Amino acid sequence: MPSHIISMRDFSRDEIDVILNRVKEFEPIARGKRSALLSGKLLATLFYEPSTRTRLSFETAMKRLGGEVIDLGALEASSVAKGETLADTIRVIGNYADAIVLRHPREGAARMAAEYSKIPIINAGDGAGHHPTQTLLDLYTIMRESNLSGLKIAIVGDLKYGRTVHSLAYALSLYHADMTLISPKQLVMPDTIKKDLKKQGAVISETSNIEDVIGDVDVLYVTRIQKERFPDPAEYQKVAGSYRITEELLKSARDNLIIMHPLPRVDEIDTSVDRTRYARYFEQSFYGVPVRMALLAIAMEAV
Amino acid sequence: MPSHIISMRDFSRDEIDVILNRVKEFEPIARGKRSALLSGKLLATLFYEPSTRTRLSFETAMKRLGGEVIDLGALEASSVAKGETLADTIRVIGNYADAIVLRHPREGAARMAAEYSKIPIINAGDGAGHHPTQTLLDLYTIMRESNLSGLKIAIVGDLKYGRTVHSLAYALSLYHADMTLISPKQLVMPDTIKKDLKKQGAVISETSNIEDVIGDVDVLYVTRIQKERFPDPAEYQKVAGSYRITEELLKSARDNLIIMHPLPRVDEIDTSVDRTRYARYFEQSFYGVPVRMALLAIAMEAV
Amino acid sequence: MPSHIISMRDFSRDEIDVILNRVKEFEPIARGKRSALLSGKLLATLFYEPSTRTRLSFETAMKRLGGEVIDLGALEASSVAKGETLADTIRVIGNYADAIVLRHPREGAARMAAEYSKIPIINAGDGAGHHPTQTLLDLYTIMRESNLSGLKIAIVGDLKYGRTVHSLAYALSLYHADMTLISPKQLVMPDTIKKDLKKQGAVISETSNIEDVIGDVDVLYVTRIQKERFPDPAEYQKVAGSYRITEELLKSARDNLIIMHPLPRVDEIDTSVDRTRYARYFEQSFYGVPVRMALLAIAMEAV
Repeated sequence: MPSHIISMRDFSRDEIDVILNRVKEFEPIARGKRSALLSGKLLATLFYEPSTRTRLSFETAMKRLGGEVIDLGALEASSVAKGETLADTIRVIGNYADAIVLRHPREGAARMAAEYSKIPIINAGDGAGHHPTQTLLDLYTIMRESNLSGLKIAIVGDLKYGRTVHSLAYALSLYHADMTLISPKQLVMPDTIKKDLKKQGAVISETSNIEDVIGDVDVLYVTRIQKERFPDPAEYQKVAGSYRITEELLKSARDNLIIMHPLPRVDEIDTSVDRTRYARYFEQSFYGVPVRMALLAIAMEAV
Repeated sequence: MPSHIISMRDFSRDEIDVILNRVKEFEPIARGKRSALLSGKLLATLFYEPSTRTRLSFETAMKRLGGEVIDLGALEASSVAKGETLADTIRVIGNYADAIVLRHPREGAARMAAEYSKIPIINAGDGAGHHPTQTLLDLYTIMRESNLSGLKIAIVGDLKYGRTVHSLAYALSLYHADMTLISPKQLVMPDTIKKDLKKQGAVISETSNIEDVIGDVDVLYVTRIQKERFPDPAEYQKVAGSYRITEELLKSARDNLIIMHPLPRVDEIDTSVDRTRYARYFEQSFYGVPVRMALLAIAMEAV
Repeated sequence: MPSHIISMRDFSRDEIDVILNRVKEFEPIARGKRSALLSGKLLATLFYEPSTRTRLSFETAMKRLGGEVIDLGALEASSVAKGETLADTIRVIGNYADAIVLRHPREGAARMAAEYSKIPIINAGDGAGHHPTQTLLDLYTIMRESNLSGLKIAIVGDLKYGRTVHSLAYALSLYHADMTLISPKQLVMPDTIKKDLKKQGAVISETSNIEDVIGDVDVLYVTRIQKERFPDPAEYQKVAGSYRITEELLKSARDNLIIMHPLPRVDEIDTSVDRTRYARYFEQSFYGVPVRMALLAIAMEAV
């Protein structure tokens, strides 16, 4: 298993399974059971762009395992970024902490940081690049709340630019998932990615209507459609409206359907859906904690 | 006792007495005695507007009780506020922490948060609304440094908009305090509030001169008069000057007078007053720590 | 030994030796060995101007010793600074923490804070004033990686305004070091400082060419030359280029030369130098941790 956690592509399916199977033992700790597994260990969080949920989730994971955290600080990150190369910062922080969680706007930043680091780097998102801990928590949520083998999943939203879904789709292809891609025509998944997914073992189909498949999938994975992608605001309104999940839409859903979303949501899922049996996005955010506990423990060789 | 701490109005006088009597046991811990009462517990601090003293006081309370803290961050709070509803944030943070301290510019935010939260919410101020932990530390300061029963108190400053004094006056009315309200005529306490205080059992009188009552009260509670309240800067200068506490003014004070102020002060209390026997505002800020320790312990059911 | 740590000038050479000799026992803890020396203690970090490395280094030191930290926050510092005098803030924070690390843009701020504080103040830089913990870590680095007695050192860069080098040069003069000062003519060390150094026991010479002395010194201490010091950008470019440390320049260096830099560096040291035997600036940043551990332990009377 790599000592740095940079990209899902560094992990074989067997390695992913090992991680996912390890997460379960951390669930009780994430729910409040005391642990001293990482007591005496120090994690540095370096967020060069804000990602509050990811940062707090890592911090929660570390602290509930008895470890401590030093944080670069959102305001300070920008001034450090101006005054020093990332390579130098990584080497200095490597003198302080036992592992680094890095979020950076530049694609490839995490890989580069790993080259200069004597302590493990965990990539918490690098621009249009990778965000492996999000993918692992998505996989774990499916494993816990649905079923990874024989999975039928619909992925909805911006499939052109969405980093989260590219990484998730890749990982699911290792499990030979049957994926339906749902997006407005402006935001369909690039052909090169689709080709790659099929090569890995995925079954891919596409549609622009959620209604077409809602009765036929185990998981509905919803992501944001960003206004900025549309030159014409009116066009955005039309598109966004047609990809909005409502109670009405769910009438034809399977009983065991689960709805996921990486959060934050804006309007993609109506709040009335929150109280249905299908909603799992808040559980999904919870699973981020035990998943990150497992990754921290693995990175710092505590398990 | 409510599991959330939202407003003083949710507490009966008996419940307030139970809390205040519990605070004393936390004083030695606030002074440095080691405790592991909240060891393994995680507090989230969500400050959507800055209130450094309140945040640090809660953080101190939590950490001296052996607990840990995750903080949303001042800069991140604004970006989270833009990207996600408070209800969603509360549900996500509820997956991480054991209790939430919330400061929000919108009146009613804490009550709303409590409706969505599966973990206790402690209101650290919601706009023009409530700030119950400030009131409890004010009451505790009076109990420790003066006497809550048979209390004669003068409250000075902006009594029209001042959230702190409204909440304090309400709580003191439960103790049938004799209150003299001192403010410039532009900033007198609204009639509806005064009526309510009398109904609860307070004796209320009003004046615009501190000199009138300085020799006759146990407590002088001073608050800021904000420049922004006056359309004419010259008018502000005149008013502010006449509500400034000086050594000279205190010559006719009772020996056992104590002066309180929620801090930060600007010019309301001359620094020469700091070394008089009357000054208690720094002690008051200290008492914020054991008071918040007691509230955290109660909220997390550790006592 | 003074209970506050404000300026190198408050320490005798004997006291400095006591501190430096104490640092060594903290090295294994800085490298990850567990310690509970400051367990139950609370450090407040007040940074009124950003200095991320210094803050994280103190935070690392405190947490690896089992202690806890409360931080004013970069954004909040500016609002606190506006709303309250430093004297009041210090007295409030003195009610929360066991020691304060203070960074402030105003010269003399740390000394003033110490007058109002009932808990130890550690100066982490006050404007053009002092930064004693940087000097102590510089001394410790020389002690560990070279030799403090009989030292021949060249100090390069902005010697007119550079606070770091003034403080270091003063401390080295107590060890009767032989110092060569190297700077562009616009940025030479002021005569009054040189006179003082000589009086303390230093041997001082000056040059504007690094080549003149590179073969003859044990330590090359490099600092930034700030663009802002030059009215003419072209003039800056010329000067900066001639004070750049490269592998080429180091061909005539002694085998046991070490190169130091307080970091962050911009262009003063070419990255190709990083992999030479001479580079010690990252080790230097590491030594900041055990040095600050020792200072925290001394300030909080744990050793």
